[in-house]
Amino acid sequence: MKILIKNTTLLTMNGSNELLRFCDIAIENDKIKYIGDIPKDFMPTTVIDGENKLTMPGLINAHTHIAMSLFRNYADDLLFWPWLTEKIWPLEDKLTSDNVYWASMLSIAEMIRSGVTCFSDMYFYMDDVARAVEESGIRAVLSRGVADISGDGELKLIESKEFYYKWNNKADGRITIMVAPHAPYTCSSDYIKKTVALAKELDIGIHIHLSETIKEVEDSYEKYGKSPVKHVSDLGLFDVNTTAAHCVHLSDEDIDILSAKSVNVINNPGSNLKLGNGFAKVDKLISKGVNLALGTDGSASNNNLNMFEEINLAAIVNKAVNLSSTSVPAIKAIEMATKNGATALNLNNIGSIEIGKKADVILLDMKKPHFFPRHNEISALAYSAQASDVETVIINGRIIMDNYEIKTVDLEKIYYNIERVTKELLIE
Amino acid sequence: MKILIKNTTLLTMNGSNELLRFCDIAIENDKIKYIGDIPKDFMPTTVIDGENKLTMPGLINAHTHIAMSLFRNYADDLLFWPWLTEKIWPLEDKLTSDNVYWASMLSIAEMIRSGVTCFSDMYFYMDDVARAVEESGIRAVLSRGVADISGDGELKLIESKEFYYKWNNKADGRITIMVAPHAPYTCSSDYIKKTVALAKELDIGIHIHLSETIKEVEDSYEKYGKSPVKHVSDLGLFDVNTTAAHCVHLSDEDIDILSAKSVNVINNPGSNLKLGNGFAKVDKLISKGVNLALGTDGSASNNNLNMFEEINLAAIVNKAVNLSSTSVPAIKAIEMATKNGATALNLNNIGSIEIGKKADVILLDMKKPHFFPRHNEISALAYSAQASDVETVIINGRIIMDNYEIKTVDLEKIYYNIERVTKELLIE
Repeated sequence: MKILIKNTTLLTMNGSNELLRFCDIAIENDKIKYIGDIPKDFMPTTVIDGENKLTMPGLINAHTHIAMSLFRNYADDLLFWPWLTEKIWPLEDKLTSDNVYWASMLSIAEMIRSGVTCFSDMYFYMDDVARAVEESGIRAVLSRGVADISGDGELKLIESKEFYYKWNNKADGRITIMVAPHAPYTCSSDYIKKTVALAKELDIGIHIHLSETIKEVEDSYEKYGKSPVKHVSDLGLFDVNTTAAHCVHLSDEDIDILSAKSVNVINNPGSNLKLGNGFAKVDKLISKGVNLALGTDGSASNNNLNMFEEINLAAIVNKAVNLSSTSVPAIKAIEMATKNGATALNLNNIGSIEIGKKADVILLDMKKPHFFPRHNEISALAYSAQASDVETVIINGRIIMDNYEIKTVDLEKIYYNIERVTKELLIE
Repeated sequence: MKILIKNTTLLTMNGSNELLRFCDIAIENDKIKYIGDIPKDFMPTTVIDGENKLTMPGLINAHTHIAMSLFRNYADDLLFWPWLTEKIWPLEDKLTSDNVYWASMLSIAEMIRSGVTCFSDMYFYMDDVARAVEESGIRAVLSRGVADISGDGELKLIESKEFYYKWNNKADGRITIMVAPHAPYTCSSDYIKKTVALAKELDIGIHIHLSETIKEVEDSYEKYGKSPVKHVSDLGLFDVNTTAAHCVHLSDEDIDILSAKSVNVINNPGSNLKLGNGFAKVDKLISKGVNLALGTDGSASNNNLNMFEEINLAAIVNKAVNLSSTSVPAIKAIEMATKNGATALNLNNIGSIEIGKKADVILLDMKKPHFFPRHNEISALAYSAQASDVETVIINGRIIMDNYEIKTVDLEKIYYNIERVTKELLIE
């Protein structure tokens, strides 16, 4: 497969914020082969007209639970703990392998349509999530969420290990695996140590929820005499490459620990706001050099997987929190959704458009009223764009969406099965 | 013109939050004629298939400056006062009638595409804004922004009066007029009194910016010994029906005054956040019975005119501010963008879908991944929808957008002229 994108406006995200104008990009097999001058003997099998398009790296949704799209708009405007324990957990207990597969297909379709080319997921029935990733052509970091609060912790660790051996580096290398202790409030100290040991044994990273709610932090002080961050740090968690989602309620000491231990923090503004959990200290984390990526969380708490909304939120919410319109500029929010996400997921071959990197590329159609006039495309991405502006999606060198049409999934079949599955879930 | 919308899911916003399923709606001339049972002798000239569509009242953007779309993405991530005085005002000084016309056409196209059927605008060269409203078929409340800070206050009042006589109730009644003292910091006390007298003379409402920034409030205390709200209240402003934009920094006394005087407050979350002005006290205003509507502000400070973003922000940001996921539920945010906007603009014949009201109706295509499953369409509107889901727009009984295509404007011509105008503006 050889793809030539012609005459486009390119935001490489390679560290320079400069846009390349009237730029050509050549893709061969799964990689970016040339940018700018294309050798005469490069014979593309597909040519994409890049005029009036903004071309950029695919977005990376660094924290989600895609099967939770089944609970989208099911229980809103409720308090956090009743929402989680009385609404979400009882339905989760009913989920089947079939449910998770179709919910995953739905979510992957939603993400592809909105320019996401890679996501990091923590859930269960992960074989079915992996199957959906394999079939759809998207890239993913997958982790079986584990906890010992309900007594079957050992079994879940065994499943995590089996899952790793079955799927790591599969689907043309698009799938990698992490170990996922759910959260300090669902995992005992001994159990967290076991997850660390497993991650070390398999030489893979950790995906965890951390300091999401005030209650979690208060409970941690009551139970362990320290914050969730300090608690898991003392257990050795951060000795392994860690992506920690949420991190809303952090002390200065917490931030110093996250910085010193090079923990990757995943900011989830949409979810943190909607669930009433508050505002993460984004500016402080950035100023301390913490690698900050972006995620949507699951659709039960957002209620979509729209990374353009998260970019916009990251760029505007922190300005209001800090009463400063210079807080988190547009380019920083876009970095969070691209190259910082790649760093967080330990995927150093994606996150920017550079020669030799994997070809995870999206094109936005700029011929829409909200993109005129074109004073500054970087501002436009953070402040004016909609997810629906994404017209073409290339993942691992393969055209997955062309002119708004996803080539790898059957939307009608997904809708039919989602309605079937939802009915079954609510009847029982 | 007789339109029949068949078999749709209808959110009437008539006070009940119930959705009508498999509902038919008949529109005759500019009004809603029947809902539900349609008499056999109603012979539609156009039939719209409403299946898999959510039908609702058109959105009302209750505070904007649409010609400022020319400055979209021109100056971002800057401090508020340098942004306004060094970047925006110098360009505004150069604007011509031609510029304002094309910028208005661009913004109206953007608003129609995103489901806005009525907007309230404060700017200058308002004849050209009115002309764009007349041609495009949208509904608008227009006001010539006036101030005496630069010395030509009297002339601007004369222009306001002439503008009223030229345009009030014109364009098939789609245009009404207000008087618009820009803000307490650009209008002297005497001048504000003159605007009040003019509004009383013409028997029309007032549109003003109020308590947008901390600096404005501090300056008001320094100059007048009281808050901006108390200051204009003491000048008699609120004796006239007033829509006050922003109202971010309010004391408890301010809120009591706004409530007692039945002032309509326009919440502009996108702008307030992006400009670093902070969070309005939305819950407190609602609990005190203040009529709260929603607006985008101009595209220079947002940077789009996307009311679905504002609905989403109104619903999620206040949850984080109040650390409560029950703050501003979905339906309340939708009310702000529909019926409360109608109340604010003194247009009691729009804002809901009821027999006898003007037919300002939008249809969203729900056959998209982010709308599945369909547990709750009201939640979906506030938490999952994108502006681009709006497929059909009817204003004053006329189909203005059909299957995503605007029937009344030529987008290519608008884009061409916006690029021409922008070049001229930047060269000089």
